[in-house]
Amino acid sequence: MRYFRDEDALVKEIARHFLPSRGPKLRLGIGDDAALWKPKPGFASILTSDWFLEGSHFLREQHPPESVGWKCLARAASDIAAMGGTPLCFLLNLALPAAVSGKWLEGFLAGLRRAAKSLDCVLAGGDTTRSQRILISVTVVGEIREGQEVLRSGARPGDLLYVSGTLGEAEHGLLLLRKSRGRVSPGNQALRKHLYPEPRMALGRWLAERKLATAMMDVSDGLSSDLPRLCAASSVGALVDPGKLPLARGIEQESAKRLALHGGDDYELLFTVSPGKAGLPRKFRTLKLTEIGEITKGRTVHLVGKDGGRQLLHAAGWDPFRPKNK
Amino acid sequence: MRYFRDEDALVKEIARHFLPSRGPKLRLGIGDDAALWKPKPGFASILTSDWFLEGSHFLREQHPPESVGWKCLARAASDIAAMGGTPLCFLLNLALPAAVSGKWLEGFLAGLRRAAKSLDCVLAGGDTTRSQRILISVTVVGEIREGQEVLRSGARPGDLLYVSGTLGEAEHGLLLLRKSRGRVSPGNQALRKHLYPEPRMALGRWLAERKLATAMMDVSDGLSSDLPRLCAASSVGALVDPGKLPLARGIEQESAKRLALHGGDDYELLFTVSPGKAGLPRKFRTLKLTEIGEITKGRTVHLVGKDGGRQLLHAAGWDPFRPKNK
Repeated sequence: MRYFRDEDALVKEIARHFLPSRGPKLRLGIGDDAALWKPKPGFASILTSDWFLEGSHFLREQHPPESVGWKCLARAASDIAAMGGTPLCFLLNLALPAAVSGKWLEGFLAGLRRAAKSLDCVLAGGDTTRSQRILISVTVVGEIREGQEVLRSGARPGDLLYVSGTLGEAEHGLLLLRKSRGRVSPGNQALRKHLYPEPRMALGRWLAERKLATAMMDVSDGLSSDLPRLCAASSVGALVDPGKLPLARGIEQESAKRLALHGGDDYELLFTVSPGKAGLPRKFRTLKLTEIGEITKGRTVHLVGKDGGRQLLHAAGWDPFRPKNK
Repeated sequence: MRYFRDEDALVKEIARHFLPSRGPKLRLGIGDDAALWKPKPGFASILTSDWFLEGSHFLREQHPPESVGWKCLARAASDIAAMGGTPLCFLLNLALPAAVSGKWLEGFLAGLRRAAKSLDCVLAGGDTTRSQRILISVTVVGEIREGQEVLRSGARPGDLLYVSGTLGEAEHGLLLLRKSRGRVSPGNQALRKHLYPEPRMALGRWLAERKLATAMMDVSDGLSSDLPRLCAASSVGALVDPGKLPLARGIEQESAKRLALHGGDDYELLFTVSPGKAGLPRKFRTLKLTEIGEITKGRTVHLVGKDGGRQLLHAAGWDPFRPKNK
C-alpha cells in the first residue's frame, strides 16, 4: 500500500501518467489554476460532465480499477459522440478514501490513460480530495465544425429511427459480473462491453459530417428511458418495432428483448434519419446500424404489439431517483 | 419535503431556476447530450473544475444551503480570475441523498443563481444522481484574449509579491461559525467572507489586460500552502514579511498572523509584479492591494524573522491528504 503525503504528491502521480501534458491540443495542462487552449477557428466547443460514483456506478470489489478508469472517461466522451463532435481534453475530479491504495490508483490511471489515448483526449487538470467512497466526476471538452452539431431536437415525424451496435449487452455483462463473482472470462463480449464501452466517436462524426442524422443522442440509461428524451426534445413521438431490436447474443429471447429495451450502459448512438435520404448502409465500418422504428406525430413512445396494435413504452431504464433500482 | 420522482424532474427543477438557458454566451444549454458554444475569435478558452463535498468542504447542519450554492461556483470561478479571464458558463454535477428535501435544494439553487448572475456565468448543464452525502462538482469555462493569460510560472527573482484584500478572514469566519453554532450575526464580515466569498474577477482582468502581473494564482488553501506552488511553478523562492500581511480585523494579533499564513478559503489573488513597473496603487477600486514580500533566487519560501533573519515557511494550509486536518 502506498499513501500520498499530501495533495500535491497525488497530483504529481496523476500527472506522471499523462506526460506530456501539453501539446498541439492543449496550451496549458495540469499544474496551474486552470487549463488553457485555443479553439480552432470555425469550430464550436462542446462541454459535458458525468458522475461515476462507487456504490452507484461501480462497485470497488467487483469492477477492476482499470475498468473504472476507462469507463469514467469513455461514458463522458460518449456525449461528445452524440453531438457528432471530437473530444479535445478532459478534467478528472477524483476523491479517494484513505484506504484506497496506490495499487488501485495505478490500475485506475492505467485504464484512464488507455481511454485517453484511444479517444485522443488529453488530461487537462481537475481536483483531488479525500472522501469515504471513491468519487469521480469527469468533464470532457470537445469541438465540432460550426453548424455540423446534431442535437436531440431535430427529429421530425416520418424520420426513421436507428441504433448502432446491439442493445442490452452491457446490462447482460453486469448481470454476468454480479452472478459470477469474478469467475466470468475477461474475454466475454458482454462483460467487455460493460467494463470497457467504446463510445461511437467515428460513427457520430460520420453522421454529422454527412448531415445524415436529423437528431441524435447516446443510449446510456436504456432505450425506454432515453428515447422519450429525444422525442420530448423534438416534440414528437416514436413507434418502435421490438422485433427489429438488435439483441445481445447468447441470451434467451425474452430476456434479451427486456434488456434491449431497459438495459443501461450501452453507449450506442440512437439517431433519426430523414426518409428522403438514401438508405443507410447496414454497417458503418464493422458496426451494425439497425432501423428499429420511426418517428411519429404524437408525443408518446409506443411499441408495435404482437397483434399489430400499439402499446405504451414505459421508461424503465436506469434512474438513480426511482425508488426501486436494479 | 418534496422528492423528485425521477432524474428528469430534478433536472427540470434545476433548469427552471436558470432560465433562459441560452443566450449570447451559450448556443445550447441544459437538455441535450452536451452544451455548445462558439468561442470568440482571438480568445483562448479556460477550463477548471472543483470538488465541494459535504463533510469535507461544508457541513449540512452549519452551512446555509444558499452559501453552499454560492460558494461552489464562486470558488471554481476564482481559478478563472487567477488566470485573468472572464467566466462564460458552468456545469453543475450534483448528487443528493434521498433525505435532502426540496427546501434545501431551493436554497442551494437560489445561492447558485445569485453567484451565476453576479459572475455573469451561465448554467450549461451537468449531471445529477443519488448519494449518501451531498456531493458537488462544478466546472467553469472562461475565456481570455489570447496572450493575456497570467500563469503561475512567470515570477522572476526581484519581483514584488502582492496579495489582494485580507488574509485569514474566511478561516476566522469558519471558526466563528463553529463556535457560535448559528448565533453569530449574518452581517459579520468574517462570516460573510467564509460563506459568500467574492472571486476577484475585475482585479484579475485588470492585472492581465495591463500586463501588470508576471505570475498569479488564487489563495484558496492558505498562503503557506499556495505560495510554494507559485514558486515551484516559476522555479523561484520567496521572502515574505509577516509584518506586512493584511490581517483580518478584530482578532488578537498572533492569531490573526497565524490565520493569514495558514487559513484557507480567502480566494484573494496572489501575484507578482516586476520591480521595473511603476508601483501599483494601494487599492484597486475598493479592494486593498498589499506588497507582502519579494521573489528570491532560491527555491524555498522564507519569512523575515523578528531578528531580521529568515525562517522557513512550512506549508500548513488546508490539505485533505494530510493526516491532521483543521
